[in-house]
Amino acid sequence: MADLPLRDDLRGEEPYGAPQLSVPVVLNVNENPYAVPQVVVDDVARAVARAAAGLNRYPDREFLDLRADLAAFLRTESGAELAPEQVWAANGSNEVMLHVLQAFGGPGRTALSFAPTYSMYPEYARDTLTRWVAGRRAEDFTLDAAHVREQVARHRPSVVLLASPNNPTGTALPLATVEAVLDAVRELPGGAVVVVDEAYGEFRRAGVPSALELLPHHGNLAVSRTMSKAFSLAGARVGYLAASRAFVDALRVVRLPYHLSAVTQAVARTALAHSQLLLARVDELRARRDETVDVLRRKRFEVAESDANFVLFGRFADRHAVWRGLLERGVLIRETGPDGWLRVSVGTAAEMTTFQEALDEVTGRPEGRLADSTGGQR
Amino acid sequence: MADLPLRDDLRGEEPYGAPQLSVPVVLNVNENPYAVPQVVVDDVARAVARAAAGLNRYPDREFLDLRADLAAFLRTESGAELAPEQVWAANGSNEVMLHVLQAFGGPGRTALSFAPTYSMYPEYARDTLTRWVAGRRAEDFTLDAAHVREQVARHRPSVVLLASPNNPTGTALPLATVEAVLDAVRELPGGAVVVVDEAYGEFRRAGVPSALELLPHHGNLAVSRTMSKAFSLAGARVGYLAASRAFVDALRVVRLPYHLSAVTQAVARTALAHSQLLLARVDELRARRDETVDVLRRKRFEVAESDANFVLFGRFADRHAVWRGLLERGVLIRETGPDGWLRVSVGTAAEMTTFQEALDEVTGRPEGRLADSTGGQR
Repeated sequence: MADLPLRDDLRGEEPYGAPQLSVPVVLNVNENPYAVPQVVVDDVARAVARAAAGLNRYPDREFLDLRADLAAFLRTESGAELAPEQVWAANGSNEVMLHVLQAFGGPGRTALSFAPTYSMYPEYARDTLTRWVAGRRAEDFTLDAAHVREQVARHRPSVVLLASPNNPTGTALPLATVEAVLDAVRELPGGAVVVVDEAYGEFRRAGVPSALELLPHHGNLAVSRTMSKAFSLAGARVGYLAASRAFVDALRVVRLPYHLSAVTQAVARTALAHSQLLLARVDELRARRDETVDVLRRKRFEVAESDANFVLFGRFADRHAVWRGLLERGVLIRETGPDGWLRVSVGTAAEMTTFQEALDEVTGRPEGRLADSTGGQR
Repeated sequence: MADLPLRDDLRGEEPYGAPQLSVPVVLNVNENPYAVPQVVVDDVARAVARAAAGLNRYPDREFLDLRADLAAFLRTESGAELAPEQVWAANGSNEVMLHVLQAFGGPGRTALSFAPTYSMYPEYARDTLTRWVAGRRAEDFTLDAAHVREQVARHRPSVVLLASPNNPTGTALPLATVEAVLDAVRELPGGAVVVVDEAYGEFRRAGVPSALELLPHHGNLAVSRTMSKAFSLAGARVGYLAASRAFVDALRVVRLPYHLSAVTQAVARTALAHSQLLLARVDELRARRDETVDVLRRKRFEVAESDANFVLFGRFADRHAVWRGLLERGVLIRETGPDGWLRVSVGTAAEMTTFQEALDEVTGRPEGRLADSTGGQR
């Protein structure tokens, strides 16, 4: 590639992404283990057939019908009152976040988040030439308001990204912390937008609020969601966010025209019409998540609190050996997060049993022994 | 939006896009007037139903099956011998071009094209913070090799975008011109990539070559195509390009992971399996394009040579009045290109008759009178 004028900061970079391996038990990318029910598959096929007849025409560039359906879903799910013009969607949360960084980031600007957090955030910053800064989460992965204020004052970000529940730790943020961030950025002369990434929001425990509640009072706040997880639609690539109209209008300027295909719009609207059915097993997954946390704790692992459909556990002197040992037993989890930790997605009951049995085998081996979990830095 | 930290260069910008109006005759965005045939619609529905059952999983990030199908199509269409790894695809040519500019453009770098040309090119440059420079095409919209060399030497671009057939003029580039550009950029110390945008390539006249012929000899050349036009699939959003493996590997680094949904992959592969049927009316559209050029010339308009599915014609003292007059008669064309010109897409026979009759009426009115077409600058 030497004679191609590749951007200097991209030289030597590898395409981002977890290994896509063919193994019996796939618990590495927080997918929903349950396939889309047949009645939804049938309706999707019908909707796509209707859309297909008109595919010679460009899709609706503003996709207000889809945006209205998404607003209606958020009303049901979190009681949020949103106009369609306050909702935005794109090909996965990835593209939604790219739009946010394209509009509000860029050279000379900074995006701030708090590590450990979602590993794609620095990629969005790189793609938009935004400076990337990560403050830190506490030992228990919560976020300290004083540290947030200090980081905001020091780095003067134009974009703050807060994942809640956080990936890969599972930690949900109290609304007071989000409000502390909103307070802190109010001091910045140029202003800043705050995005609460609730990709796993539907899996939060009872009583844990959504940052959607704060939207009416903050024009610079956005709450992003996805249909990839709770809706079992990772393959359909539909991410979305809710914010003020002004916020969404800024994204409309940077989006590529017709970014959302007529087929994607049809699939998403069909799924939203079946949201109750598609989300019917979310409670089951939450219960199994809690159970997984309990089981791992009983096995004397350190386990992070989780409001998501995955569990971060550790700590291992050689986590790669544990990861590989599981893979050899047909169980693919994710080697991510702070050193010593591993992340497992919540699958079916059978998959979690296989995982636990494989883990018992692997951690019985010398290289799988627990590190001292009582002290030391992550 | 005053209190949001919108990027300075985006303030006051409007979302890009032609008006999406509901009128009887839509000839403004170079869509294929023919709907996808029922047998393809049925197969698309079946393929999407198959894909839908597995939508809880992320799509194949490398989509090598689709890339192989696209390579096979280009082999049939243009005799190009390409490995799947030499083909790239994204949600519309828009996103393909964004990937190119993300990889090879950026701050401190320049993208060069030759105006009048596709109005999205400056948007891609803006979105990637690449400097945008446009040289000029000749009076007849062809490209002068000496001017190309001069512009390349002067602006030292890292990306050169050449539309062939050009939008909005319809002008195809001889391979000698593309080779002159490739020669010129060879002198640049940092190198440059050259993208020949053949979005309308399938509509080129007999004997007009595709730049795909040049690919084996130029690792820095890419030829982009789309399924939006000849394939009647604008609503499905599938653009693609062919290039060297090294070129494509650079795009893999900047793409967002899972950018192409499982549904989009299924729709595109189904369409490619039916490419002969979907492209069956391309010849008819080419004949009608030639006929439209003839008719407009007989009406004493100035008409650009066209190898695309649209025709640029003029020149009008007040082109907006003509555009509006046509719209009032239910015919939507595009007010684009150099001042005084209008662009009409090639529709069905009935649509072209309606267009011609409406044009007769409108240009009979005082404000529709032809400007002096023998002199003056565009």
